[in-house]
Amino acid sequence: MLGSSIGERFGFTSFGESHGRCVGAVVDGCPAGLDLEEKDIQKMLDLRKPGQSLVSTQRKEDDVVEILSGVFRGYTTGAPIAMIIWNQDQHSKDYEQLMRKPRPGHSDYPAWAKYKGFNDFRGGGRFSGRLTATFVMAGAIAKKLLAKTIGIDTYSYTTQIGKIKMKSQADQRMKKEIYSNEVRCPDKMAAQKMRTAILAARKSGDSLGGVIESITTNIPLGLGEPIFGSLESDLSKALYSIPAVKGVEFGSGFYGSGTTGYQNNDQYIVKNGKIVTKTNNAGGILGGLSNGMPIVLRVAFKPASSIAKKQNTIDVKTKKPTLLVVTGRHDPCVVPRAPPVVDSLVSVVLADHAIKCGLIPPVLR
Amino acid sequence: MLGSSIGERFGFTSFGESHGRCVGAVVDGCPAGLDLEEKDIQKMLDLRKPGQSLVSTQRKEDDVVEILSGVFRGYTTGAPIAMIIWNQDQHSKDYEQLMRKPRPGHSDYPAWAKYKGFNDFRGGGRFSGRLTATFVMAGAIAKKLLAKTIGIDTYSYTTQIGKIKMKSQADQRMKKEIYSNEVRCPDKMAAQKMRTAILAARKSGDSLGGVIESITTNIPLGLGEPIFGSLESDLSKALYSIPAVKGVEFGSGFYGSGTTGYQNNDQYIVKNGKIVTKTNNAGGILGGLSNGMPIVLRVAFKPASSIAKKQNTIDVKTKKPTLLVVTGRHDPCVVPRAPPVVDSLVSVVLADHAIKCGLIPPVLR
Amino acid sequence: MLGSSIGERFGFTSFGESHGRCVGAVVDGCPAGLDLEEKDIQKMLDLRKPGQSLVSTQRKEDDVVEILSGVFRGYTTGAPIAMIIWNQDQHSKDYEQLMRKPRPGHSDYPAWAKYKGFNDFRGGGRFSGRLTATFVMAGAIAKKLLAKTIGIDTYSYTTQIGKIKMKSQADQRMKKEIYSNEVRCPDKMAAQKMRTAILAARKSGDSLGGVIESITTNIPLGLGEPIFGSLESDLSKALYSIPAVKGVEFGSGFYGSGTTGYQNNDQYIVKNGKIVTKTNNAGGILGGLSNGMPIVLRVAFKPASSIAKKQNTIDVKTKKPTLLVVTGRHDPCVVPRAPPVVDSLVSVVLADHAIKCGLIPPVLR
Amino acid sequence: MLGSSIGERFGFTSFGESHGRCVGAVVDGCPAGLDLEEKDIQKMLDLRKPGQSLVSTQRKEDDVVEILSGVFRGYTTGAPIAMIIWNQDQHSKDYEQLMRKPRPGHSDYPAWAKYKGFNDFRGGGRFSGRLTATFVMAGAIAKKLLAKTIGIDTYSYTTQIGKIKMKSQADQRMKKEIYSNEVRCPDKMAAQKMRTAILAARKSGDSLGGVIESITTNIPLGLGEPIFGSLESDLSKALYSIPAVKGVEFGSGFYGSGTTGYQNNDQYIVKNGKIVTKTNNAGGILGGLSNGMPIVLRVAFKPASSIAKKQNTIDVKTKKPTLLVVTGRHDPCVVPRAPPVVDSLVSVVLADHAIKCGLIPPVLR
Repeated sequence: MLGSSIGERFGFTSFGESHGRCVGAVVDGCPAGLDLEEKDIQKMLDLRKPGQSLVSTQRKEDDVVEILSGVFRGYTTGAPIAMIIWNQDQHSKDYEQLMRKPRPGHSDYPAWAKYKGFNDFRGGGRFSGRLTATFVMAGAIAKKLLAKTIGIDTYSYTTQIGKIKMKSQADQRMKKEIYSNEVRCPDKMAAQKMRTAILAARKSGDSLGGVIESITTNIPLGLGEPIFGSLESDLSKALYSIPAVKGVEFGSGFYGSGTTGYQNNDQYIVKNGKIVTKTNNAGGILGGLSNGMPIVLRVAFKPASSIAKKQNTIDVKTKKPTLLVVTGRHDPCVVPRAPPVVDSLVSVVLADHAIKCGLIPPVLR
Repeated sequence: MLGSSIGERFGFTSFGESHGRCVGAVVDGCPAGLDLEEKDIQKMLDLRKPGQSLVSTQRKEDDVVEILSGVFRGYTTGAPIAMIIWNQDQHSKDYEQLMRKPRPGHSDYPAWAKYKGFNDFRGGGRFSGRLTATFVMAGAIAKKLLAKTIGIDTYSYTTQIGKIKMKSQADQRMKKEIYSNEVRCPDKMAAQKMRTAILAARKSGDSLGGVIESITTNIPLGLGEPIFGSLESDLSKALYSIPAVKGVEFGSGFYGSGTTGYQNNDQYIVKNGKIVTKTNNAGGILGGLSNGMPIVLRVAFKPASSIAKKQNTIDVKTKKPTLLVVTGRHDPCVVPRAPPVVDSLVSVVLADHAIKCGLIPPVLR
Repeated sequence: MLGSSIGERFGFTSFGESHGRCVGAVVDGCPAGLDLEEKDIQKMLDLRKPGQSLVSTQRKEDDVVEILSGVFRGYTTGAPIAMIIWNQDQHSKDYEQLMRKPRPGHSDYPAWAKYKGFNDFRGGGRFSGRLTATFVMAGAIAKKLLAKTIGIDTYSYTTQIGKIKMKSQADQRMKKEIYSNEVRCPDKMAAQKMRTAILAARKSGDSLGGVIESITTNIPLGLGEPIFGSLESDLSKALYSIPAVKGVEFGSGFYGSGTTGYQNNDQYIVKNGKIVTKTNNAGGILGGLSNGMPIVLRVAFKPASSIAKKQNTIDVKTKKPTLLVVTGRHDPCVVPRAPPVVDSLVSVVLADHAIKCGLIPPVLR
Repeated sequence: MLGSSIGERFGFTSFGESHGRCVGAVVDGCPAGLDLEEKDIQKMLDLRKPGQSLVSTQRKEDDVVEILSGVFRGYTTGAPIAMIIWNQDQHSKDYEQLMRKPRPGHSDYPAWAKYKGFNDFRGGGRFSGRLTATFVMAGAIAKKLLAKTIGIDTYSYTTQIGKIKMKSQADQRMKKEIYSNEVRCPDKMAAQKMRTAILAARKSGDSLGGVIESITTNIPLGLGEPIFGSLESDLSKALYSIPAVKGVEFGSGFYGSGTTGYQNNDQYIVKNGKIVTKTNNAGGILGGLSNGMPIVLRVAFKPASSIAKKQNTIDVKTKKPTLLVVTGRHDPCVVPRAPPVVDSLVSVVLADHAIKCGLIPPVLR
């Protein structure tokens, strides 16, 4: 499969650049008969839209999605669903210097080397976080499909910004609070501190990283294709496509590595006539297969690399050291915009697997 | 691609079961003209062989590999390379009870549910760590191919067992020490403590988890296929195919999420006429592309789930609670056997990407 | 790979419907550094444009292509190249009756059954010959890429319409004559008769089929990936995606099945210091690999199924027999519009294989 | 996907060489719960076994298949099914001269050029018709799966040898006669003439080509994935992997190109309450989708290229002309051994599509 596409039975192709004419996605494999209109997608896109608050970039984009194909009389047709957002608020001249002076921590240098300067470097081009809008276009469809057919639901939220961490996982009740604040953290106290930390970082010309936690409920037993199509394999592959992601873990993850089998094993019990586990250190996945418990994963984002502080870089033409101050409008922390992106990719992967397992038919109704 | 295969231009299909007749791999896409004999593969298989010490399972398997196709007069032909290991030391009756009483933390229950009881449950069947021998068969070829053509080298080692951690990354000098002890940790002091911890866990009928760190040097600039074929995407997908893996991170990973952009960005300098970075918090990958610095990644393994301690489980037929004591021969900690497995999958993914980037020709000389 | 995509290292995704808002293609895997502008694609699209003469449909479409991504400062960037044509001249009401009364010989009935009526049936929707415009968008890029790098050239022409056949293959000299007439047959005498035959068919409310012959010159030795990625496998797979194609053969094809080995084998000689064959009954492919001789293939098109003559069909709701007269604007023979489509798909497949063989680098210059 | 694999949800990887240790196949994606034993596969392998009569090669191979994995207690497990046949009767020295003097019409020359002499040339190595045994291993499983679940049945037979053709299609009644004679032609009169023609060709040191016709009944409506995964696309791709195939057509095929729409369209009628077509010029496929009528296709085989007659070739090292007389044991006509091979590939493709359409569940009962 080519690099801009993901998914085998439900998937999509992402196209466009940060400062090109548009960004877009072509979803293929969506069953026919799903009622779908632009506002289904718009709703989710609005949750990651830039320019909404001081904790994110000041670039203003309305991000209005248009469906170009694959929907007829309000329902999906089984044909590919092409969608597009026309770019509006590019300030490309901010980026001219970056062609020669690569930003530390950004894709500028390896991209320049790989494409020998032919890549569209404006705004990071193909490597920009802006491309995650195309993930959300596809993800909104996958999420609706999963909700309508199997009842699977995914919610993701900020669990850490810089050094500030939420105390515990967000349960169904806290889920409603995720979008009640700018940082997308359902724990109000933590959210307040996170916001303060981001604003302080912005003020000092610096940036912060953080962690998104994602929980998927109502998952059927046995999703996953051993060995290389394990659920963890496919979820992590998708999540690592988000710019700035440097870690993915499931259940007790890295922490669990420091425990013992007796502590970490989730013992089986029967609850309401159903076999479940007492704990969920496995994060809902055993042997690469869903075990019916909620899928719990965490995604580590590095601090945004485009910062106003003076940094050492190299002029790639002269190979001389030089100092760089990144101008332009950048997110002081990308994490608050990431929850719908994580939701989207998780949904795309699960829709793909649910179709592979025969749990969603080629035509609904 | 079907679940038992991985790789697009260099890849392999894995087959076999823990207690079946054999385990095997079919490598496809290996360029013609690589000198290859069984001992090239055997050498690496011997490093993960069971029954070598008290820190691993007591199952004895010689794991002698046979090449069945794809090699002619000592060189690869460009045709698929099928390889096989005949199983020897199965004690299948140990597993009869597990069909009905799934082990907590193991794939038994979701596998039983997914395949409605048709799966070969003996020794975990398809989900056994034994299948990682097939990863090593393919990996040994990939590693030799990369060494011979580009000079890429990967080494992996135990950096944590239970609560015991190595202090720092292993440099080239420490690399030689990895296989000097049973736990595959190049820091002798730490290794000694890790060994003691594993033996204590074994004695108490419990098990330990741990972390493998992997370093790849001499990596060319620009490997990776944006967006969904990012190096991190493909590496993590492969690594999550190893049983018991619950976390994968690159460079500063989860730790980096708690730092600032200024702290985490790797500033550019020139060294020996080459553009490099002062630090390597990116773990050698920016924007999903290799940036020429060593690729550094860590893989979190949960504690082995098959433990002798009494655990709660459910009889899947009666749905009645029951107690389980896992008998049979199991690794009290799988981590010491994992370094060659991690090396293998990293090598397979990099060989695939190197071929995609045109860095390895279809025929060597 | 999902149904709307083709190609592994160079490929594209096709989207849109005959009477939807647009048709489009997203090419992925095109090397960076190819100079490309819309007129490169437009030129080739103009050769298949509808409404150009009496031998084709009277639907008028300017088919103006827009490049939406992947080109920067006149050169490809290595990122996906999205292209679009906005539809203009739809007369959708012509098709309302077809929802219930499927046209004999058309996809109407199986499409209605597969998608349970959710498919966009207007103008054949996704099954319309109009979608071949998306093949040409991708093909124009592939053709230019092959010409610029390896010098491969493909030309296709009408060799049969109804019962009228060209006498012999078109050589390089005749190649220039292909587009000198409406039926795209380089043999002027035959072309004249073909035109007359099509006009007669149109007048009688009927349609004609025909055969396209395609020749590719300057092909390197050894393209093709045994066994299932043979050149013939991949070329035929692509060509069978063109609506109305019911046969594909290479070299002496079906005729050759009636000869003997001695007659059909192409004996080797040396010519200008190069090993070539005296004849080319193999059509340039042996064992699924290019042998350096021109690739010669023929594609059989059935007569267009949308005809004005009264035909028996069934009302799919009542299951009652009924008569059907297809109205709307249709091609009395699709063959004259097919040569650029065949050129396109052949070029896409060869570009994919040339990249796989390492003959085209990821960046030009 | 790599060249030795085919199929997306049901597929297989083929390995081995004509004169290597073995030939084998690894089937992946077969649902769990299919009762399967070696004799299910052996039965079909026996139909293509060499050395059975004077019309085929005198190489004697028992072709005894062993199942190595994926079957447990008599049922498939959902895991990959590896199968192997150990080669027995190689006479490799017959081939030494061919390394330098390529056989006209055979893959020798392009294979030598592609792999720069590293390919296993003995007996054609990877390009030998012997590899079709691996197609039958996989096909026997697919055929049984289709029969047990949907009731799909495929039968293929010789319809032409050299100039001798069967008069008409074989109906269900004639189907039983296919294997009643050595040439696998259910028309006894034609079969007799075909046999005589082959023996005459053999006697004169020459060979014959021919055509296989394949009919698949009881096919559900709507199989196929538009646009590039059309049934015709995937069937032809698979069939062109058989050595010596130079043409594939469906329904009226090339003949249909000379007719009119009115003649070629299959008009709809109702029969036994079911919508069917009066004729079947479409060969059961419209718009790339099955329309419920039998799938009818024809596969053109060129005459076998290895003939005893003196032919002109070139010594590839000296580039000097030379004469070649092919020794060794070869089929004077491969067509009589092809019906089970065609059955097999058709079955594999249909199993893949039936699973994609959700018509076969991941576990049977």
